Amino acid sequence: MYKSVTKFIDDNLDNSIEDIKTLCRIPSVAAKNEGLEEAAELVEKMFKDIGLETEIHETSGASVVTSWLNVGAKRTLLFYDHYDVQPAEPFDLWDSPPFEPEIRNGRLYGRGVADNKGDTVSRIWTVKAFKDTGTDLPVNIKFVVEGEEEIGSVNLPEYTEKNTDFITADGGIWEFGGEGIHGKQEAWLGLKGIFFVELQVERLSRDVHSSTACILPSAAYRLIWAVNSLKDQDSNILIEGFYDGIKPLTDAELDAIEKIDMREEELKKVYQIEEFLNGLEGDDLKKAYYEDPTCNICGLTSGYQGKGSMTVLPARASCKIDFRLVEGMHPDDIHKKLRKHLDKKGFTDIKIPYLEGYPAAKTPVDHPFVKIVEKANQRVFGDLVIHPTSPGSGPLYLFKKYVPMVSIGCGDYESKTHSPNESFVVENYRKSMHRLVAIMDEMSKW
Amino acid sequence: MYKSVTKFIDDNLDNSIEDIKTLCRIPSVAAKNEGLEEAAELVEKMFKDIGLETEIHETSGASVVTSWLNVGAKRTLLFYDHYDVQPAEPFDLWDSPPFEPEIRNGRLYGRGVADNKGDTVSRIWTVKAFKDTGTDLPVNIKFVVEGEEEIGSVNLPEYTEKNTDFITADGGIWEFGGEGIHGKQEAWLGLKGIFFVELQVERLSRDVHSSTACILPSAAYRLIWAVNSLKDQDSNILIEGFYDGIKPLTDAELDAIEKIDMREEELKKVYQIEEFLNGLEGDDLKKAYYEDPTCNICGLTSGYQGKGSMTVLPARASCKIDFRLVEGMHPDDIHKKLRKHLDKKGFTDIKIPYLEGYPAAKTPVDHPFVKIVEKANQRVFGDLVIHPTSPGSGPLYLFKKYVPMVSIGCGDYESKTHSPNESFVVENYRKSMHRLVAIMDEMSKW
Repeated sequence: MYKSVTKFIDDNLDNSIEDIKTLCRIPSVAAKNEGLEEAAELVEKMFKDIGLETEIHETSGASVVTSWLNVGAKRTLLFYDHYDVQPAEPFDLWDSPPFEPEIRNGRLYGRGVADNKGDTVSRIWTVKAFKDTGTDLPVNIKFVVEGEEEIGSVNLPEYTEKNTDFITADGGIWEFGGEGIHGKQEAWLGLKGIFFVELQVERLSRDVHSSTACILPSAAYRLIWAVNSLKDQDSNILIEGFYDGIKPLTDAELDAIEKIDMREEELKKVYQIEEFLNGLEGDDLKKAYYEDPTCNICGLTSGYQGKGSMTVLPARASCKIDFRLVEGMHPDDIHKKLRKHLDKKGFTDIKIPYLEGYPAAKTPVDHPFVKIVEKANQRVFGDLVIHPTSPGSGPLYLFKKYVPMVSIGCGDYESKTHSPNESFVVENYRKSMHRLVAIMDEMSKW
Repeated sequence: MYKSVTKFIDDNLDNSIEDIKTLCRIPSVAAKNEGLEEAAELVEKMFKDIGLETEIHETSGASVVTSWLNVGAKRTLLFYDHYDVQPAEPFDLWDSPPFEPEIRNGRLYGRGVADNKGDTVSRIWTVKAFKDTGTDLPVNIKFVVEGEEEIGSVNLPEYTEKNTDFITADGGIWEFGGEGIHGKQEAWLGLKGIFFVELQVERLSRDVHSSTACILPSAAYRLIWAVNSLKDQDSNILIEGFYDGIKPLTDAELDAIEKIDMREEELKKVYQIEEFLNGLEGDDLKKAYYEDPTCNICGLTSGYQGKGSMTVLPARASCKIDFRLVEGMHPDDIHKKLRKHLDKKGFTDIKIPYLEGYPAAKTPVDHPFVKIVEKANQRVFGDLVIHPTSPGSGPLYLFKKYVPMVSIGCGDYESKTHSPNESFVVENYRKSMHRLVAIMDEMSKW
């Protein structure tokens, strides 16, 4: 089936990778509001170049690029992608410049290649392969490509709420996925929610000589005491009511989890750890992975951070924290509870600007579209490992009512998304396009 | 007395300030091991230019520059200074470039002008004034100028232990001092000790996507828990035995303190604080200032510190801490106790490299040389406020046995040493040279 299409994909692999490189050379870091317009325009151009209709939807933040091709098929497939990337810091840990992608030992390296510019291009090139070979597409196609995924899709609701018809489809492919540590492809049916906040302390008009620490208050220590109060050393989150309303995993989800092999020893080697958090292992480890919310420090800043010693009492200190939320929790509610917690502990002066947030969402593990993706994967890669949810976050909640989403992609467990030396395996990228062809084929038989 | 000498000082004020600027243009930041040799050579040249003998003493670190002039007088005056400076970070808070000094509204701004390149030059120029006017010096002169004061004078003992004859003198002027918030000049008779350490935590092979925080350990949280365990919210330091052996203030010192007006309300305005640490005021505030050791965070670092959000679980976290020590405490002992504390709390993995350290030392408040400085100050400035010790640190302990030291200088309470926009008042600088002339005169009558 569709031999000419997959042959076109293989024959033009270098060309499609060239498109990824071009897109990745734009440092479209949403956190810094840099390069977003340029990246949106390039994505729009890519759609136009393959003959698709497009529309740019302005929002209060970055634009949402949509594109579509209605071939009059019974089924419609929607893709959700994003053209923004995480910051590339710390730059000195990259083996090659983050925004100058290059292939080494069969992997393409660069910020955004795996999350998710490579996938975006793979989806565009799969549609291109049908068109350029004169092959009828078996399904109608829709694309939603946003530019603020890495900062919590803060303005995406402005688009989705006004375009529920467009985002309605029979099946949807979410932005990421790939090969697990067990060598099998993985699909993710849900995403945790997120609440990202910064704790900001200011105690003095300016940094002063640290000898005065005997009589002046310390912003840094105040931050330490406040952050310490949020979580104990067994990782219990101490904010009152934090765990209220959490929906436990369903029996169907527990069944799905049972089949999953975490490959604990291999993961320990990857991360160079002797044990997982709190000594978790086996079923407890798996349950924590799918079911636990978190309170994680993404960044800590105060005072002098250079070499050697500088004796200063810093005026300011801050801590970036992301809370991963599971179904039943809401970021606004956690923000209120965090404020209440800090006030109760006497930290009324600590500011907590809300940086991003949205709730969790999941596609049911027994949805027919999940089976379609599983079958298609079998044709190209083999067995598919199905995760009821990713521990990561994404604005799936905006789409949940309108389309069953499954997240698959060209990455793997060594892709280092959000870290230096982000990469994917070129061969997986190639086969992920074959899988898309198979998904379209399977959908047409549904 | 010595009218021609003080006139020479006044007539050549611009020239001596030009020398400060030249010295301050060398960014001799000891913490970064930058510009030290260049600064040492310039200081040596300044001594040679006024006809003094000099010697450069190599150490395992920066060189010690000494200089002397023996006029066969009964008394000998020793100066202790340093040619290194603190780092200038954060650069963006400076109103003019830190290493391009400039005068604005009667103040000279630049890194090191007040701590202590201005004082160093003032002392050289005072001797020059005697020599250039053909006036006999009333005392013999010795200079010890080191290059690692800002990183704990780590190698200075290599010099002082081998040169006890040279550092023996009837009186010594320590590096810093100036005008207090009450408008009076201040002298400091002692210096607290210091123990500067960095707590370093590493928990993962690399930074990873923060979604994995549900199963992987957090270096940043581990640092928070460890640093939290060192000090409670009432600023009690919780390291076992930390306060053992501390010598309380003597009755003579308490008498001296009683005369001191802290000008609490004015200080609160300077620092923009509603209250001092733990609500301290009156006698308690004063006692804390002279008598309390500290455990202060100079710097905190982990993960992403840029704008907006980046969802990362950082592999590493670190905290720079300086402990100010009072008489009876020793940095090596505190280092051991800190290690024991962390081990006991389960933080055996946290590394604590010792960055600098030395004990406290004080000159007795009733020493005759203190009276001489007081008298000389009266002749030029008026009343002198005598502090039994500075809350700051310096390697006074190396000199204590050989020379009674008093710290005075050209700074003031707004000098912002160790901070952006370091400066001094030019008029105070001028008069501080007149005071040196008066000290030499008073010493000759002793």
